[in-house]
Amino acid sequence: MFGKLPKQVTIYEVGPRDGLQNESRHISTQNKVTFIDKLSDTGLSYIEVTSFVSPKWIPQLSDAVSVAHDIKRNDAVHYSALVPNDEGLERAISVGMKEIALFISASETHNKRNVNKTIAETLKEFHAVITRALDLKLKIRVYISTVFGCPYEGSVDPQKTIELTKILLDQGIYQVSIGDTIGVAAPNEVARLLEQLLKQISPQQVAVHFHDTQGRALANCLVALSLGITTIDSSIGGLGGCPYAPGASGNVATEDVVAMLHSMNVHTGVDLDKLIDCSRWVGALVGHELPSKYLKSHRSVKKQRGTQ
Amino acid sequence: MFGKLPKQVTIYEVGPRDGLQNESRHISTQNKVTFIDKLSDTGLSYIEVTSFVSPKWIPQLSDAVSVAHDIKRNDAVHYSALVPNDEGLERAISVGMKEIALFISASETHNKRNVNKTIAETLKEFHAVITRALDLKLKIRVYISTVFGCPYEGSVDPQKTIELTKILLDQGIYQVSIGDTIGVAAPNEVARLLEQLLKQISPQQVAVHFHDTQGRALANCLVALSLGITTIDSSIGGLGGCPYAPGASGNVATEDVVAMLHSMNVHTGVDLDKLIDCSRWVGALVGHELPSKYLKSHRSVKKQRGTQ
Repeated sequence: MFGKLPKQVTIYEVGPRDGLQNESRHISTQNKVTFIDKLSDTGLSYIEVTSFVSPKWIPQLSDAVSVAHDIKRNDAVHYSALVPNDEGLERAISVGMKEIALFISASETHNKRNVNKTIAETLKEFHAVITRALDLKLKIRVYISTVFGCPYEGSVDPQKTIELTKILLDQGIYQVSIGDTIGVAAPNEVARLLEQLLKQISPQQVAVHFHDTQGRALANCLVALSLGITTIDSSIGGLGGCPYAPGASGNVATEDVVAMLHSMNVHTGVDLDKLIDCSRWVGALVGHELPSKYLKSHRSVKKQRGTQ
Repeated sequence: MFGKLPKQVTIYEVGPRDGLQNESRHISTQNKVTFIDKLSDTGLSYIEVTSFVSPKWIPQLSDAVSVAHDIKRNDAVHYSALVPNDEGLERAISVGMKEIALFISASETHNKRNVNKTIAETLKEFHAVITRALDLKLKIRVYISTVFGCPYEGSVDPQKTIELTKILLDQGIYQVSIGDTIGVAAPNEVARLLEQLLKQISPQQVAVHFHDTQGRALANCLVALSLGITTIDSSIGGLGGCPYAPGASGNVATEDVVAMLHSMNVHTGVDLDKLIDCSRWVGALVGHELPSKYLKSHRSVKKQRGTQ
């Protein structure tokens, strides 16, 4: 079963964006910058730092330009930001972002409620954004959400995700991130969709983005890994969720993913101790316990396993 | 990857024993009996109801005989109890138990600290207990703990578990349950051990017993299932842990396992709604939130997915 595990996996850290956007406590720009700088020092190679979304949608991220401007750029880290439309793209460009992420839903109803557009309208808007971004040699990834279930529609046809993936990769984006927005994916559904996708695209062109709502995120990551996927989205501490999916909670925690990968001798480049320090720091910042199980167990595990 | 998933999996519920033995709040005999009766009504086919351990070791289970006597026996359910030695066996026999479970560690130090005996001494004591129990036609399973890591020794040689398994099955027990007592198992370690075991014994002779300390229990269950294992130990709500393993916490939650299995159309015979009702009931009884993620997400998921 594990002959095919990748030797190296890229963790795509979404905590500063996907995590903080759902926190109720106001976080100062300076603290966001410190948070990202701490993450940059853990060995993570991809960090999504903010969203250039309209401040009226997500007030918590209204200082996106300042955050992106003030962080200390580490040459080993790819910094990206979410961009909802052409206005967002111009703000991202203004502050020198080299990588951006767009988002769309596999479910028509979820897309409509999320951005008040049909999927077709969103793709049309994407086309302009992608064209402009590629002209400027930006790297572009696209989040496809509600891939394994929608809070409004229930189950979602995997063909929707496959079609969207092909359309978007053909336009020149480098990767889709397939999201289990409400955390209901069955491991064999994940396998079936990925097996179909990987007949047509390379493993590097697809990332997985699981929520741990029902505790299955690591099982689903394992399925993805065993099929050759090498990019996993996660959020430090398990910070965040999706504000447009009622009841959805919990990106898989970065430290839980990294600890599982390291337990199997899969490299991530991430220093788990530094990650835990950063997770504790941001837990104190947002003012509540973070859901990561590895974080909770860390102290006793260290004690139990000596230097391991 | 999933061609080999079993169609039907047996859940071996350990909540009344492994769960309650670690609860600090006093639970009355009547409430324990009600708890077990509720579990019997969920469709579970195996329930470990108590431990005939010395009351001075685990005061919470000192009413073992009364509990085993007072529960309403459902013909569809196998009721078992933990038995630490010949005295415990006699108590189990006195109250008509047909199935018993013994326990031993794969780690010498953990075994010594747990029962103040070496592994060899424990096996010697087992031999007498097993002989007597088989004479009475009791079914016997054995828990092997610290299979994937020990709080005192660190890593544990898989050969220890393989040797113990062979010795015990040769003596006539029907199943070993291999336990990740401190919740550190790497999914590929689980695969390697099971692959070796399954060269020599049948899948029905081995159950898996994972703790969710680092969030990997469901991933490890999935690995076991994909290798043909058909018995999973779990504890409703995630109740319990191991009192002799510092920092160890959290049997995998029955509802998390059952929900994952049902999501993949693997049958368990368990009614998930009844299980959730029972989990809420016992959560109120022990007076604290239980760790099951499915339990926490249940209300919103129902709302989101309609009748699914």
